[in-house]
Amino acid sequence: MVPHLVTALTGPINELEQRILDSMPAIERWFRLEWMEHTPPFYTSVDIRNAGFKLAPVDTNLCPGGWNNLTTAMLPLAVQAAQAAIEKICPEAKNLLIIPENHTRNTFYLSNVLQLQRIFGMAGLNVRIGSIHPEIRESTPIALPDGETIVLEPVVRNRRRLGLKDFDPCTILLNNDLSAGAPGILEDLHEQFLLPPLHAGWSVRRKSRHFQSYEEVAKRFGKLLGIDPWLINPMFNQCGEVNFAEGTGLDCLRGNVDALLTRIRRKYKEYGINEKPFVVVKADNGTYGMGIMTVRDVADLDQINRKTRNKMSVIKDGQEVSDVIIQEGVITHERIQAAVAEPVVYMMDRYVVGGFYRVHAERGVDENLNAPGSSFVPLAFEESAHLPQPGAKPGASAPNRFYMYGVIGRLAMLAASYELEATDPDAEVYD
Amino acid sequence: MVPHLVTALTGPINELEQRILDSMPAIERWFRLEWMEHTPPFYTSVDIRNAGFKLAPVDTNLCPGGWNNLTTAMLPLAVQAAQAAIEKICPEAKNLLIIPENHTRNTFYLSNVLQLQRIFGMAGLNVRIGSIHPEIRESTPIALPDGETIVLEPVVRNRRRLGLKDFDPCTILLNNDLSAGAPGILEDLHEQFLLPPLHAGWSVRRKSRHFQSYEEVAKRFGKLLGIDPWLINPMFNQCGEVNFAEGTGLDCLRGNVDALLTRIRRKYKEYGINEKPFVVVKADNGTYGMGIMTVRDVADLDQINRKTRNKMSVIKDGQEVSDVIIQEGVITHERIQAAVAEPVVYMMDRYVVGGFYRVHAERGVDENLNAPGSSFVPLAFEESAHLPQPGAKPGASAPNRFYMYGVIGRLAMLAASYELEATDPDAEVYD
Repeated sequence: MVPHLVTALTGPINELEQRILDSMPAIERWFRLEWMEHTPPFYTSVDIRNAGFKLAPVDTNLCPGGWNNLTTAMLPLAVQAAQAAIEKICPEAKNLLIIPENHTRNTFYLSNVLQLQRIFGMAGLNVRIGSIHPEIRESTPIALPDGETIVLEPVVRNRRRLGLKDFDPCTILLNNDLSAGAPGILEDLHEQFLLPPLHAGWSVRRKSRHFQSYEEVAKRFGKLLGIDPWLINPMFNQCGEVNFAEGTGLDCLRGNVDALLTRIRRKYKEYGINEKPFVVVKADNGTYGMGIMTVRDVADLDQINRKTRNKMSVIKDGQEVSDVIIQEGVITHERIQAAVAEPVVYMMDRYVVGGFYRVHAERGVDENLNAPGSSFVPLAFEESAHLPQPGAKPGASAPNRFYMYGVIGRLAMLAASYELEATDPDAEVYD
Repeated sequence: MVPHLVTALTGPINELEQRILDSMPAIERWFRLEWMEHTPPFYTSVDIRNAGFKLAPVDTNLCPGGWNNLTTAMLPLAVQAAQAAIEKICPEAKNLLIIPENHTRNTFYLSNVLQLQRIFGMAGLNVRIGSIHPEIRESTPIALPDGETIVLEPVVRNRRRLGLKDFDPCTILLNNDLSAGAPGILEDLHEQFLLPPLHAGWSVRRKSRHFQSYEEVAKRFGKLLGIDPWLINPMFNQCGEVNFAEGTGLDCLRGNVDALLTRIRRKYKEYGINEKPFVVVKADNGTYGMGIMTVRDVADLDQINRKTRNKMSVIKDGQEVSDVIIQEGVITHERIQAAVAEPVVYMMDRYVVGGFYRVHAERGVDENLNAPGSSFVPLAFEESAHLPQPGAKPGASAPNRFYMYGVIGRLAMLAASYELEATDPDAEVYD
């Protein structure tokens, strides 16, 4: 089940793979020591782009969907990691309530929720699904395409606790990224564990904040391995007060796009890379692949058509875009058959538990693949997981490639941990 | 790869399976709370016998061999559990030294050591193998049947630390059960982690002590599930100062065998079981399947032949037998094809990571299978691990059977944790 990779990987990435393999004990120890100081997010997925000459995370999700893309064979690892997470955070837990997104008609998304219910059920919890959708007023079974049924139940809130009519959970798992802001019903729950916390939702998160933390992590990791952190770090700039619909704030955007393209060009020259630099402009709090635009030349910005303007103006849950991040574009040189592919790594607690390739036949190597028409091919974690094969030739072994992805995924997860510490509204500050 | 089980399972065990499945959240929570109070042994294997009407551990190994019987597909779980264990005990670890048994010619055993080296290597440690065998005076590569090579190196001891000439480990993994007593070279290592500790070796351990702890665990677990603890607990008696060679101390043995057979008969009557009761007499500190004898009638003891006397007199590493445990015999009603089989469950830290059936074509249902001629069939953990399938008919589903084995295995592991606390020479006592 190893997907057939038609990937033209050139020198640098194989060197990086070799460096990462050779440094494995140092890397694992480094992560262990980091996790002594920092708490990993409860669960995380990371989109990675492998350009052949560099390998970088481009998006880190702290309320990941897509768990249904993991194969049955990956389940045991996810269950074991879930047990470890529960044991650490709330060993006395019996009941877990999952709060999903309000996509009550998206059966693909609901299959993901059912998979989470299965994972935490097998980890030994009573798991039920509490919808905060206003239309869910009674227990609502929904048939899924594969013949299974998911049951959404209306949440019940009293002054101190959130639950269902006959179900009092001590732990609440958010699978809702709160793009529209944290609803009041989730606030002031001081008696129950809310995982991840509210400030892991997109009402608080900013991509620029995350990648600032990631840059810090990449620098320290680069030092550990003796590599240029750029090889794993996508550079970025940011702009506030951009209004695509009205065309205001675009000067800032132009200036930053231009500056970033110049920085990328310089790096490409340094490494002798014959690719055309590009940047990706994204809503700073965007998710679901919405509000994303590839820019290859600053002049492109003067010719944004109405469709793109609309696309960039409003993102998930009708949120208006104002802050944007301008991120170094990382082309993907991974392909499955003819289609462009990017790996997505799934983590539970500090453990890599699986992953898949997001594949899009109609998109280019420099475009966002998280778009309608994409499909999913499980990574070959079922056989080899993230287990490297020392001695295999760099670039030749799927397990070693996946180990490297797992390392990059964990670096992004660590950055998210830094980020959550910095944005924690209840953090104790020692001056 | 689910082994074909020809197992005539009768009512009680299916009821037990159903009870265990129904109580899964309570069981997992109970274990989590136990592990808050007690430290799991570093790694554990447990031999289980499934009589159809009862299911019980018959031996618990704290320096388990046989890791090579686990399939490649089980490796990821073992690696993840190893990472969890290392992180908890010695996160700053870089180097791990494995101290194996002195069986330098047993390539089957050495394949087990190589598998451990692989697991901890993949968990991110530098792993080398330090032999305490007096004949290993230099780095000694040994070819294994599957084409791999293991390298044994002589240990070097200074006043404070144990290592190799150019290798200073902060953690030492014992895969040597110390039947002959803890060698001086392993004593007074206060700067390094010794896993498991010396008192987990058979120079200190006694089966009777373990099963006393197990009885306590089984009682509490029985209460949780509302079942007769006998369904999961093998009754036992013990005798000291038995000398099979000289025929002394046999009165105590006769009396205890007789008493235990009577107790078993009573239980069989209570449950309407038409089997012939038997007991198993074992050296109280025996291992490797040595020093074990099945007794079906107290009169058998008067007719012990010379061969059996010799077998019972001396066990591994030439240790003389004096204390014996008389354990309720649990027949095994599991068969693979025509051969009698018993499951063995492997755990790392608190996690069930795999298992296999020990199969012996030439032994009876009431005999020890850990004997020359046995073979190994992996449990179907690769697909389903210990993940139960709620809704499956009791007795019909391999995953549910394996989940039940995993629960019994963990109960025995918990008993070992109690046992190690009770025998810890460095325990702090609060009066």
